[in-house]
Amino acid sequence: MQNVERREEIARLAKSARRLGFSSTVDRNTLLVRISEGLQRDWPAISAANEADIAAAEADKLAPALIKRLRYDEIKHAETLAGVADVIALKDPVGATRAHRLLDDGLVLKQITVPIGVIGMIFEARPDALVQIVALAAKSGNGIILKGGSEAQRTNAALVASMQKSLQGCALGSEWLLLLESRSDVAEILEMDRYIDLLIPRGSNEFVRYIMENTHIPVLGHADGICHLYIDKEADLTQALRVAYDAKTQYPAACNAIETLLVHEAVAKDFLPALSERFAESVVLHGDAQTAAFIPCVPYKDGDWEHEYLDLELNIRIVASLREAIDHINRWGSSHTDAIISTDEQAIATFFAQVDSADVFANCSTRFADGFRFGLGAEVGISTQKIHARGPVGLEGLLSTKYLLAGSGQVVGDYSGPDAKAFKHIELDPKESPDA
Amino acid sequence: MQNVERREEIARLAKSARRLGFSSTVDRNTLLVRISEGLQRDWPAISAANEADIAAAEADKLAPALIKRLRYDEIKHAETLAGVADVIALKDPVGATRAHRLLDDGLVLKQITVPIGVIGMIFEARPDALVQIVALAAKSGNGIILKGGSEAQRTNAALVASMQKSLQGCALGSEWLLLLESRSDVAEILEMDRYIDLLIPRGSNEFVRYIMENTHIPVLGHADGICHLYIDKEADLTQALRVAYDAKTQYPAACNAIETLLVHEAVAKDFLPALSERFAESVVLHGDAQTAAFIPCVPYKDGDWEHEYLDLELNIRIVASLREAIDHINRWGSSHTDAIISTDEQAIATFFAQVDSADVFANCSTRFADGFRFGLGAEVGISTQKIHARGPVGLEGLLSTKYLLAGSGQVVGDYSGPDAKAFKHIELDPKESPDA
Repeated sequence: MQNVERREEIARLAKSARRLGFSSTVDRNTLLVRISEGLQRDWPAISAANEADIAAAEADKLAPALIKRLRYDEIKHAETLAGVADVIALKDPVGATRAHRLLDDGLVLKQITVPIGVIGMIFEARPDALVQIVALAAKSGNGIILKGGSEAQRTNAALVASMQKSLQGCALGSEWLLLLESRSDVAEILEMDRYIDLLIPRGSNEFVRYIMENTHIPVLGHADGICHLYIDKEADLTQALRVAYDAKTQYPAACNAIETLLVHEAVAKDFLPALSERFAESVVLHGDAQTAAFIPCVPYKDGDWEHEYLDLELNIRIVASLREAIDHINRWGSSHTDAIISTDEQAIATFFAQVDSADVFANCSTRFADGFRFGLGAEVGISTQKIHARGPVGLEGLLSTKYLLAGSGQVVGDYSGPDAKAFKHIELDPKESPDA
Repeated sequence: MQNVERREEIARLAKSARRLGFSSTVDRNTLLVRISEGLQRDWPAISAANEADIAAAEADKLAPALIKRLRYDEIKHAETLAGVADVIALKDPVGATRAHRLLDDGLVLKQITVPIGVIGMIFEARPDALVQIVALAAKSGNGIILKGGSEAQRTNAALVASMQKSLQGCALGSEWLLLLESRSDVAEILEMDRYIDLLIPRGSNEFVRYIMENTHIPVLGHADGICHLYIDKEADLTQALRVAYDAKTQYPAACNAIETLLVHEAVAKDFLPALSERFAESVVLHGDAQTAAFIPCVPYKDGDWEHEYLDLELNIRIVASLREAIDHINRWGSSHTDAIISTDEQAIATFFAQVDSADVFANCSTRFADGFRFGLGAEVGISTQKIHARGPVGLEGLLSTKYLLAGSGQVVGDYSGPDAKAFKHIELDPKESPDA
């Protein structure tokens, strides 16, 4: 914390977030409706700010990919607001009963969902990500501290100014939402471990890895997406080819696109030439020595197995067994998403049990690893960590829980010692519980 | 990581833990039975080791409380083995279906529980804690790295040597269990963030706080337990007195014992003299100026509100309203366990909603905050953090999840673009799902 002013600002934010946390579903949805209406009304100012950011980025000769992500035009704005409408329509995730148990007569325990508290989001470019995370935070009753990249500072400031204006006069206030000025250092947010309960970084792999390695705050996300597709010896090769093509080419820059194809040696002779033909025009194939015996490919070099191309390039390795495939994935993968193509139920079961990844698939594309496709309603991110939430994470990733115990004068002394009363521990139906 | 040998040892541990992770319920229970039988058989060696530790601790003039926690006698051993038997009897926590959803025809998503991977436990004294955590780790399919205090090194080594002997010849091997030598530094385990998924520290507040502040590994636990009891203006004062006495005196060294009593000013005149009479003999009362107007007490001094006595001492503060009580708790508490005594349902509902603690109770003692009393079967620890698990944590705190998606050749290309197929997203009954 640099100074007293910032500390006070954060203290107000935490307090405001707490108020948001126990507000009603209607109040939080109303607040989102106001934000959305405000963003529509303020489109001219937002658009002008974005054009200024784009012009500055072009003058600074930033990478075209970055400028593309920075662009926030009318179509993007409409999509973003449609996304906010979707979030408004979602069921309230707060206050759901997770457990409900009679400990003894007149002593009832309930575990309910509550907001985590304060979310920190650090992101590069993409102003739409700002709007999305604010919507998810408000819906789930969390305060939010945003830190955007300097390339998008005008757009981000215009978006947040519009939101703050919409929140004026709202009973829930506007202090739960804070945009750190772009001149402040990323290091500042990384050190806010007393105030931020969860960090969500959005940006390049290097960016996310830097965040993960430089903070004590829990991070929801993933750095690498080194995904695999394994073609088993018992596989429908037509299906295998179709899935492999989709998993590599449907959107190669996505984290859930495959980087390495593992092929059982028994089907390599039939499968690889067909693959080579299908991929030849569009995908650069890197292969080990055995692969090179079947098809033309760039020879494998050290480091390829752990390289995320994020582009139309693919490693191929021939394996002697399912075991070798699983070992390769657990050794070289990033525990993101890995799939098997097989008609052998036993091989699928082994793959499901032994591949240690957030998402393990059979006979479909790795590209299905996504919160919307999974039916989670919204996607907060995809986590490859094992703590808190793993795989595509919906709103529940922004929640914690709280135990409520309602008694009628019970003391622990009565349940201790030689004449101890026994607990009943009877499970009650969560659905039948009245709201606490 | 200090050296190549240790790196290889940890790599073997991770591999062995993975094998444990997908082993059957029967295999993991068998392994616990063997460990338990071995510990019974090896009692003479364990006992001799503990006597040597105790003798050394006495010669070194360690604190009597520490020597007490270090003592591992026949009674403690029997209790510990009974605890292992309880863990064996628990339902297998691994492989439970958390979500089950039809994404589209022939494309079924399942989220199942899996072990976290490798647990690190750092503990002071208490050899029984070692046995307990090994049992919980094995039951939940996790590898475990243990780091005990030097005061218990002989006992810990004897316990682990017995376990390792029992695991010889077991198909699951013994490499998933590792005791770091006592001469190795705690710093070593704190730096193992590439290998350890979750750290569980057991020891003094200072010890736990040190661990939390010096590692990037997620920590399950709590440092302080600054718990409160608030006596509302609408309260059964006989009940209030009984609960207050239990919450302070039933086991004052426990983290869930209260440190501060908040009393509504409307009942102070009736309640405080009765409290003073009941507590006078045994508890030192610290009070603010208003309290001192009613009863004799040690005058409040700065820092008292955030001090955990862990002893027969209690702060008393008079508050003007429920709001002031809630603000005090959220400001000065440690988000552990806080309770209200009230007959006013609205006051209870407000307290439940607005107190931001892991456990919020009404009309019962804070001492109920405990995994066994909550009916969790086993207690891994009590967490005051909001990530992963909060409050008393059972075996589920040692679990993560994995998504399994079983398809029949689906590709994402068919669900994209202008002619995109729609997802069905139909919830299926988790109970009806065949095991994956």
